[in-house]
Amino acid sequence: MANVMTDLRPINLADKLAHFSEHWSPRVIAEMNDYQFKLVKFQGEFVWHRHEDTDEVFLVLDGSMQIAFRDGAVNVSAGEMFVIPKGREHITRAERECHALLIEPRGVVNTGTAGGALTAPNDAWI
Amino acid sequence: MANVMTDLRPINLADKLAHFSEHWSPRVIAEMNDYQFKLVKFQGEFVWHRHEDTDEVFLVLDGSMQIAFRDGAVNVSAGEMFVIPKGREHITRAERECHALLIEPRGVVNTGTAGGALTAPNDAWI
Repeated sequence: MANVMTDLRPINLADKLAHFSEHWSPRVIAEMNDYQFKLVKFQGEFVWHRHEDTDEVFLVLDGSMQIAFRDGAVNVSAGEMFVIPKGREHITRAERECHALLIEPRGVVNTGTAGGALTAPNDAWI
Repeated sequence: MANVMTDLRPINLADKLAHFSEHWSPRVIAEMNDYQFKLVKFQGEFVWHRHEDTDEVFLVLDGSMQIAFRDGAVNVSAGEMFVIPKGREHITRAERECHALLIEPRGVVNTGTAGGALTAPNDAWI
């Protein structure tokens, strides 16, 4: 789809965020080659998991989140980003609702190798 | 470098933007697999060019830009993004200084197949 000029409208992040409210359920807003840009809203704590084959980027748009590893943690606030290295077990948390832009290859499942109840559909476009 | 946890600091876009002032000279701030996240500041008009092998993403952080194609154009403002399809000839413009986050594979040259005086070093980290 990225190779065909379908329309000349910019993708407005705030407009897209208004399309959904579910937590831990990433929505695809764009593709670049075989990578996807997904918006996600969340609050509370996710599950420990890792992605064996890929790095993963979180760019925080609103609020603040913590990305914790087994040996440390980083707090990422609006206007900041972080690259989670592939294969590194991690968990994401937010005390208050946080909105982030997630960038990773098409097909990546949110819970990685962990699976479980929080596993979301991974190709839900808005 | 993305596979080794070098530090647990978030990458603050505003802080990084304060590190340089040159126009049309993208600076790398992060890598995800073989993709790079680059900050760029610009004003005026770039050159017509295309990237034969890759899509290219602009996420505008401050100001507003126009991405023009031979058969149309899109205006992209702060909080908006656009995916330039691979192979599509385009030119970028901004009446006032614009700051954007550029996402594309490592090694992509800013002027694509056009070359010329505005060609910038393509692996300048800040």
